[in-house]
Amino acid sequence: LTNLPGLLEENVPKHHRSTTIRNSEDEMFTSVVVVVLIPAGYSNGFRGQVASAGLLDLLDEGVPGVGTYEDFNTIDWVREKSKDRDRHREINRQKKQSDLALLLSLIDAFSGWLLMLLIGLLSGALAGGIDIAAHWLTDLKEGFCMKGFWFTHEHCCWKSNETTFQRRNKCPQWKSWAELMVGVPEGASAYVVNYLMYVSWALIFSYLAVILVRAFAPYACGSGIPEIKTILSGFIIRGYLGKWTLLIKTITLVLAVSSGLSLGKEGPLVHVACCCGNILCHLFTKYRKNEAKRREVLSAASAVGVSVAFGAPIGGVLFSLEEVSYYFPLKTLWRSFFAALVAAFTLRSINPFGNSRLVLFYVEFHTPWHFLELFPFVLLGIFGGLWGALFIRANIAWCRRRKTTRLGHYPVLEVVVVALATAVLAFPNEYTRMSSSELISELFNDCSLLDSSKLCDYISPGKGGERAANFSMTTNGLADRAAGPGVYTALWQLVLALVFKMFITVVTFGMKVPSGLFIPSMAVGAIAGRLLGIGMEQLAYYHHEWPMFKGWCSLGAKCITPGLYAMLGAAACLGGVTRMTVSLVVIMFELTGGLEYIVPLMAATMTSKWVADALGREGIYEAHIRLNGYPFLEPKEEFEQKTLAMDVMRPRRNDPPLSVLTQDGMTVEEVEGMISDTSYSGFPVVVSHQSQRLVGFVLRRDLVISIDNARCCQDGIVGASRVLFTEHTPSHPYQGGPPPLSLRPILDLSPLAITDHTPMEITVDIFRKLGLRQCLVTQNGCLLGIITKKDILKHMAQMANRDPDSILFN
Amino acid sequence: LTNLPGLLEENVPKHHRSTTIRNSEDEMFTSVVVVVLIPAGYSNGFRGQVASAGLLDLLDEGVPGVGTYEDFNTIDWVREKSKDRDRHREINRQKKQSDLALLLSLIDAFSGWLLMLLIGLLSGALAGGIDIAAHWLTDLKEGFCMKGFWFTHEHCCWKSNETTFQRRNKCPQWKSWAELMVGVPEGASAYVVNYLMYVSWALIFSYLAVILVRAFAPYACGSGIPEIKTILSGFIIRGYLGKWTLLIKTITLVLAVSSGLSLGKEGPLVHVACCCGNILCHLFTKYRKNEAKRREVLSAASAVGVSVAFGAPIGGVLFSLEEVSYYFPLKTLWRSFFAALVAAFTLRSINPFGNSRLVLFYVEFHTPWHFLELFPFVLLGIFGGLWGALFIRANIAWCRRRKTTRLGHYPVLEVVVVALATAVLAFPNEYTRMSSSELISELFNDCSLLDSSKLCDYISPGKGGERAANFSMTTNGLADRAAGPGVYTALWQLVLALVFKMFITVVTFGMKVPSGLFIPSMAVGAIAGRLLGIGMEQLAYYHHEWPMFKGWCSLGAKCITPGLYAMLGAAACLGGVTRMTVSLVVIMFELTGGLEYIVPLMAATMTSKWVADALGREGIYEAHIRLNGYPFLEPKEEFEQKTLAMDVMRPRRNDPPLSVLTQDGMTVEEVEGMISDTSYSGFPVVVSHQSQRLVGFVLRRDLVISIDNARCCQDGIVGASRVLFTEHTPSHPYQGGPPPLSLRPILDLSPLAITDHTPMEITVDIFRKLGLRQCLVTQNGCLLGIITKKDILKHMAQMANRDPDSILFN
Repeated sequence: LTNLPGLLEENVPKHHRSTTIRNSEDEMFTSVVVVVLIPAGYSNGFRGQVASAGLLDLLDEGVPGVGTYEDFNTIDWVREKSKDRDRHREINRQKKQSDLALLLSLIDAFSGWLLMLLIGLLSGALAGGIDIAAHWLTDLKEGFCMKGFWFTHEHCCWKSNETTFQRRNKCPQWKSWAELMVGVPEGASAYVVNYLMYVSWALIFSYLAVILVRAFAPYACGSGIPEIKTILSGFIIRGYLGKWTLLIKTITLVLAVSSGLSLGKEGPLVHVACCCGNILCHLFTKYRKNEAKRREVLSAASAVGVSVAFGAPIGGVLFSLEEVSYYFPLKTLWRSFFAALVAAFTLRSINPFGNSRLVLFYVEFHTPWHFLELFPFVLLGIFGGLWGALFIRANIAWCRRRKTTRLGHYPVLEVVVVALATAVLAFPNEYTRMSSSELISELFNDCSLLDSSKLCDYISPGKGGERAANFSMTTNGLADRAAGPGVYTALWQLVLALVFKMFITVVTFGMKVPSGLFIPSMAVGAIAGRLLGIGMEQLAYYHHEWPMFKGWCSLGAKCITPGLYAMLGAAACLGGVTRMTVSLVVIMFELTGGLEYIVPLMAATMTSKWVADALGREGIYEAHIRLNGYPFLEPKEEFEQKTLAMDVMRPRRNDPPLSVLTQDGMTVEEVEGMISDTSYSGFPVVVSHQSQRLVGFVLRRDLVISIDNARCCQDGIVGASRVLFTEHTPSHPYQGGPPPLSLRPILDLSPLAITDHTPMEITVDIFRKLGLRQCLVTQNGCLLGIITKKDILKHMAQMANRDPDSILFN
Repeated sequence: LTNLPGLLEENVPKHHRSTTIRNSEDEMFTSVVVVVLIPAGYSNGFRGQVASAGLLDLLDEGVPGVGTYEDFNTIDWVREKSKDRDRHREINRQKKQSDLALLLSLIDAFSGWLLMLLIGLLSGALAGGIDIAAHWLTDLKEGFCMKGFWFTHEHCCWKSNETTFQRRNKCPQWKSWAELMVGVPEGASAYVVNYLMYVSWALIFSYLAVILVRAFAPYACGSGIPEIKTILSGFIIRGYLGKWTLLIKTITLVLAVSSGLSLGKEGPLVHVACCCGNILCHLFTKYRKNEAKRREVLSAASAVGVSVAFGAPIGGVLFSLEEVSYYFPLKTLWRSFFAALVAAFTLRSINPFGNSRLVLFYVEFHTPWHFLELFPFVLLGIFGGLWGALFIRANIAWCRRRKTTRLGHYPVLEVVVVALATAVLAFPNEYTRMSSSELISELFNDCSLLDSSKLCDYISPGKGGERAANFSMTTNGLADRAAGPGVYTALWQLVLALVFKMFITVVTFGMKVPSGLFIPSMAVGAIAGRLLGIGMEQLAYYHHEWPMFKGWCSLGAKCITPGLYAMLGAAACLGGVTRMTVSLVVIMFELTGGLEYIVPLMAATMTSKWVADALGREGIYEAHIRLNGYPFLEPKEEFEQKTLAMDVMRPRRNDPPLSVLTQDGMTVEEVEGMISDTSYSGFPVVVSHQSQRLVGFVLRRDLVISIDNARCCQDGIVGASRVLFTEHTPSHPYQGGPPPLSLRPILDLSPLAITDHTPMEITVDIFRKLGLRQCLVTQNGCLLGIITKKDILKHMAQMANRDPDSILFN
């Protein structure tokens, strides 16, 4: 793993290529070893000349490499699902024969549920560990617990007897760095020391994070959701969900979050959960050997990720369904739900927030909302949509600049500089100094009378004590009140924090450290929402006679809840960036636990989605997928053009004709020549060059492996041997010639073929729904061409006036 | 509509046939009228000989009938979606040309949301009306409000000043029938009068319900969910979602629920919501003219149905996704959610339960559950699964008996007899006399100290007042207590009610009145759960020193909540019958509003599903679909057999060859002969009879209409005219012959074809995912046969050792 230095300076595709080579070498090595070890079994399976279905199974097992995929290729869902059904049938057949097989079949049937349980437990435990570690490291930036360095600030004071309820975060055991170093808790010198320590720790954490990512697991950077979406749609990226990525991402995520950079842990937690899923898949043959089945598990794992990130299991499942997954059968729905629940409860047992709540931001509002408030709610939606669309544009422009200019050559420096800027600018402002999750918590909070935070510094109404007491009696002290000086200070600080967060998040997302986008987006929205909420509240307090407040917002009534505005703002901004709707509403609903606020949430997120969609169709994840050139066929985007399959298929007009094999007219040498002359990943087999009638399709990889194996291990196969794809090999060998090589077993007899007049919209639909890798095109029964997923993606890019060469992989 | 008498005596397929004829006559009539009115426009569009795509559009508009479906046929999803995309492209093209068109395109884009809003409003209003009316009629069985006959019992006493909190259902304004008729409220004669009135009203309501269904809308019977599932999968049943069905189902649902029959209103509410959806679709051309788009709306409408039935919008959406829908794109997810919310809030504004709660059974539990309680929870799951599986078998056996014996000839008598039996047996037992929803509410209820119901008649602990006071102080009066005599009476009555409900529900579901299954299933489960809960509670109270209770269930602690057991039992039984999982958990979660009980719910429903699945794979809706022979391709069931397309396709071996058209070798007369000789719904077009190479596919309906139209309106088309499907008609007409008829515009140039070696599992997958109606089978490029959806269903039935002729429709 130490042969990866320098990779990070280059852009992503380059890494990919490097790792490809490394991986395929590894694989080749394995193949050779296995062939040497089991030549008897193999040639036995291969010499059979009758193409029975059983032989195909044997071959799948016997010839190593047949039926697997190269790195950066797209899987064939149809074939993978067939393989799984074959396996299932075999188990069903055997289970009638012995009790052991019956037991094994039961184990097999429940292995999916067991796997879900394990994923839930492991991801929940990891998420709990990450939460605790990040808490501790974040507090380390401030100071140190004298009782033991492993205590967080809260934990340190929790156990102290000298902590009062009012100032529960002050206790003698917790020393700020200033107290430890210069011995004074307040004053200019203390401020400077604290400032310096804050910045230094931020630099250390971020430097460690980027160095670790760079040295051990380049795939651990970013949020991971664009790549996971691509993987779930059927792409192979070896190592992306491996154990090194898991380890490094877990560690660097803690460091990155603690460093104070404007990033969240939600996207990376999805990546971590998917790594857990992928690694645990190796325990079960069923999932280890089947790419399609494994993707079902990964879909469930991404639900687990969101479930532990927010403590919202239903929201997690819907997130997986709405945002991440490609193929989501009902079975996966049930299993995702189960896994998400297990994970959420594991996390709750670990209890990292110390409040035995499942959710990250627990809020409870007591005031119903009024119909007229929908107007400011929609305003928040518009803000969220605008910010989402602008953020995506700015972030993509910045990331493109990173890929194309010299900026991309210094990833470590970039992270350190951004961390420095963040820390230096963040420290002076209380609301940027605290971690984003704390900030969101505070902004969501509905002020009670006991609250000591600046945001809750309201002036008790009335001057006389009697009136105030009377007042608070009638309204339980929850009425709207005039803002005090603390609130006004907080307002200014929040405005500055909003501007700062808006800019810094653009440059942060996409750096070479694990970085999620949920929390920063929510923070921006929550600040904006709280500002609007306080504004509305004061408006209603001072102008309760205005017609718009009449009837529902009289003096002494609690009518505006600024915390609710903050929550809606957060939802709107997150919706604008990711374009989630239902899952977002459900996550927020699980946070608050009340059906009451579904309508405001719906109004805000829907407005946000509409506004953002009007400015640009893509969410941040799709935009990053396109930026990186992954072969992802967006299931949401409708194909609008009226082109036909013949416009897209290769060969184009004036191109040389399609490379095809004939079913009985070619020799081994000719086939090998064709393989080395072309780079296609598969070849159609036709009856003859004259008729061009389609017989089947054979994959390049299978062909290469089979011919190599036959040449080395099968008697009499030479360059002049005929390659036969026909059902019956002639009983008498060719006069004088060498024995023929029957490759019928590796021939796919059921390639999907469409006619040249098939509209592309239907073709795209077929590719999406069946998960095809390629499709043949015929005209009046004769083979005319071939369409691959890449052709479709290029065509779609062309139609949308984008650069068709941006799609990099197959 | 009066020509339907006698239909009900026959079995369902017969009706279908009758209505088919009636409907297609209606349609023919319409076609003729339109043809007479617009012959110019039509022949204009038809005379064009060049097969451009624009012409096809014109034809779709111009020739009435082309592109529509017969009753009891399956739609072609691919074609419908293509049609919609064409329409969309046309709007996009036009919107660049004028401001009006731009406005129209905006209206078109938002029409889906508008439609959802309307469906939500209408369904919510109807559900509110049904709730109020059913409440009133149910109370009418008991007595009468002297203040006004339109008040329900609760409403009557609500307004009375003489109502006390303890006995809030007793007030002088509300008179029982005994008081009104014999003047005494208690005693034997009063009991007899009340008994007789109860039975008489039940008979009147049920008789009215069945008579109305029989006379005006035979489709209004049953729950409707099996048919809606079939319709959503692409089947056409004309009139099933029409205005008469809506009207009659709404009225008879109220009557059936009020009659005290063991049925619920949840399934029928889904049907009512779908009727609303279908009727409102007619306001928008986009949805009126496109069967696929309309099904998206209906998917959302079924979410609305569950949303208003339980007040659970998220549960409703998941129900639609998990249980009802076939094609559920993300767009539909968003819209369903929106519609479900609108409907839930409309219902809440109407406030039919008078408690301003959204949900049907609001419960709030205060006690956390203990890990060891999972054992009884799983027991409830097993009970639910067993009951579900047995109920399905018994109910299907009974329904089959109704279809095959003389029983089915007397639907009115059957309903009246069952209603009589229900009323006579139900009245003596308090728990069966009350409506099922009330019963469930009472069983879910967590006893507080103030509760006056028999189920809460616990003995206050300790003899001495001091100890009792002390005790209630420490535990807030919520501790487990010993059961009093009321509880023991209630236990016996509940056991009897359980047995009664279990039997009567089997014969009730499937009768010719609107009948839902949710509430009766939940009632059975809730009774069983409450019984177990009380048992556990008493066990814990008397044996709190047992090891299993040690540590969490000491004396004076509240450890068992019988209401929670009732809720879990209800979920388990409903899960056993319908095999819902996630949606069920979410519905129940929305009822209680707490994440706390998700794990118990999950344990109960999952166990229930596994147990029930082990005894029979099908849920009640699938079983009814199969019983009625609808062509429904179950998306959940995996196809396990290893057959190939060639084993399923027609023509079979020894059959006459496939009826095909050639692209330029047949005359109008020959084509007409083939149409009248066969009954296939479409014909493949090949290059020539010799080569059998596939060119396209043409639908019988389109062919008939086009030839008829050409014969009547196009110059020179006679029987000897050649029918051409080729791209270029010869520039000079055939020597001496009449002018040829080009039918290229109606030729589908992109029929999906698979090879004869395609495994059936893949074929089934293709049919399911693409929503195909038929698929052609080729071998080496030559047409070999055809597979229709019906062939697949028959094959699947055969493979599962069922009667393949049970599939009745195309």
